[in-house]
Amino acid sequence: MGVVIPLEDNKNKQASVKPLVDLTLSDMERVNQLILSKAGSDVQMIPEVANHLISSGGKRLRPMLTLAAASMFGYEGDGHIKLATSVEFMHTATLLHDDVVDESDLRRGKSTARTIWGNQASVLVGDFLLGQAFRMMVDVGSIDALDVLSTAASVIAEGEVLQLSVAKNMETTEDDYLQIIRAKTAALFAAASEVGPIVAGGSKADRNALKSYGTNLGLAFQLVDDVLDYGGTSSDLGKNVGDDFREGKITLPVILSYRRGTPQDRAFWREAIEGGASDAANLEKALGLIRRYGGLTDTIARAKHYGTIARDALAPLPASPWKSALVEVIDFCIDRVS
Amino acid sequence: MGVVIPLEDNKNKQASVKPLVDLTLSDMERVNQLILSKAGSDVQMIPEVANHLISSGGKRLRPMLTLAAASMFGYEGDGHIKLATSVEFMHTATLLHDDVVDESDLRRGKSTARTIWGNQASVLVGDFLLGQAFRMMVDVGSIDALDVLSTAASVIAEGEVLQLSVAKNMETTEDDYLQIIRAKTAALFAAASEVGPIVAGGSKADRNALKSYGTNLGLAFQLVDDVLDYGGTSSDLGKNVGDDFREGKITLPVILSYRRGTPQDRAFWREAIEGGASDAANLEKALGLIRRYGGLTDTIARAKHYGTIARDALAPLPASPWKSALVEVIDFCIDRVS
Repeated sequence: MGVVIPLEDNKNKQASVKPLVDLTLSDMERVNQLILSKAGSDVQMIPEVANHLISSGGKRLRPMLTLAAASMFGYEGDGHIKLATSVEFMHTATLLHDDVVDESDLRRGKSTARTIWGNQASVLVGDFLLGQAFRMMVDVGSIDALDVLSTAASVIAEGEVLQLSVAKNMETTEDDYLQIIRAKTAALFAAASEVGPIVAGGSKADRNALKSYGTNLGLAFQLVDDVLDYGGTSSDLGKNVGDDFREGKITLPVILSYRRGTPQDRAFWREAIEGGASDAANLEKALGLIRRYGGLTDTIARAKHYGTIARDALAPLPASPWKSALVEVIDFCIDRVS
Repeated sequence: MGVVIPLEDNKNKQASVKPLVDLTLSDMERVNQLILSKAGSDVQMIPEVANHLISSGGKRLRPMLTLAAASMFGYEGDGHIKLATSVEFMHTATLLHDDVVDESDLRRGKSTARTIWGNQASVLVGDFLLGQAFRMMVDVGSIDALDVLSTAASVIAEGEVLQLSVAKNMETTEDDYLQIIRAKTAALFAAASEVGPIVAGGSKADRNALKSYGTNLGLAFQLVDDVLDYGGTSSDLGKNVGDDFREGKITLPVILSYRRGTPQDRAFWREAIEGGASDAANLEKALGLIRRYGGLTDTIARAKHYGTIARDALAPLPASPWKSALVEVIDFCIDRVS
């Protein structure tokens, strides 16, 4: 008898978000309808500002997580549609406020709302979307889901303030940084995933599995985003390379390169990030240092580490197309960078 | 037999907030403790920014409304403490965001958070307080209270955007303006009052009575605020006279004076509000026009009209010290201006 040698075809295939997109297609149509309806208002400026960002081509990964995480536990009501829409509104509100906080002019290759309608509209429409998000959650009526999502709202804001407090401080450690992205990014991924089993009546173990999956997927996602900010190209990203550098934002590639560098390298980083010497020549030099000290490759290695934890979190759950799609999204998020 | 002639002593006595303050004293101590605890965070900047505003001497009228509105229906749990704190946090978050939107440098005579810590911290700490407010509401566990307060959060933001959309448009009518203050101010007064009977298990009629009371008290309160902005003195208010004028904010005194004025007067208002010609000489002229056309006295008359509706809303409820205190607060709010 011959021995079957696994060909591991999958290892060579680029991971894709397509299975998740296909599985959630009809639900996402309902989410998109609800987004348009709940971003509506007689106050014309609200749908204008909201739709500018909503229609700007984000992947809507977070609401897809909620839909898949509910469906994999057999949920058949419509609460997951409302929760998924709430999650996307929380995300959109955060982006509107982030652009004000970061004074950003471009997001996903388009002018930010604040450059078109002003900081004022961005702050207030963000507040409106957050209010609408809570109304939809209340409408679903699950106190557990409300607890998870309202806690995420606090934690996200806390993470953003923490990031602001350590801004331009080169002594930020990898642990400090992890604490920030755990709050500002991973908390919403975790909540988006955990409310799936909550609305579907899953067990405490199911909730924990999805929460852990979401947390670690979110960490991997943010780390890869940080690499893309230094390694992607402007046309790929709709974002100029070096935005984080120019804003003096400290991300893991910078932390690694700073800590691994010579005293002269560290003096350069302090001048660039703390002193604001972030012109094109210094960005070029920064990119050189980041590459020399493995700042990008090792940040990707960290992302893979969290990706593995996310995969293991789902491991005990029964096999299903939903589970496979969620697992494949981990590699998809990480492969964005390669 | 002699006829007893009512002396109506009360009519001559200045209305006071004191009965409400006295009745809610021990509950407000618990609210103040909870405010400090829930505005706390390991991220040091959060309590710094939050406490700057929280300790700046606001009257905390809104949480007192919640406490009184729960106690008058015999409530004896601690849900009203959490809801009152949520209401105050929603209010504080709105103030933090308002200062960014209005680019204000002073509030209650103190530098605004945004001038000390920047717009960024004001936006994000506001978001954090809003998240904490929702967590406390969720903790109380009443879906009805959550519904009322989350709806208020949306409506408030919608009102602020509406105000932004009509900013500097002199054709704003009194009705437009009422729609704005009904949303941006009265909605929170209404919600703060309505959650009292909700948490206390009051009837639908009780809820409606308190909602109507809060709405109309809020309208009266805002109208008097608008009068104070033109008529108060800097030392009384901790706010410079004419802030609204300089910001091109259209309030009822201006609307009345514009609509009642001559074509020349209207040209002046357009130049001042729409064209930004709001220097000291023009403020002086504006004050003269507002007085000539009864802009302040008639705005106070409108406030009294809503005050009467608020009083009648409570009329069917049984007499109690709580009810008397809430009724007296109506006149207290209006008397601020005299």
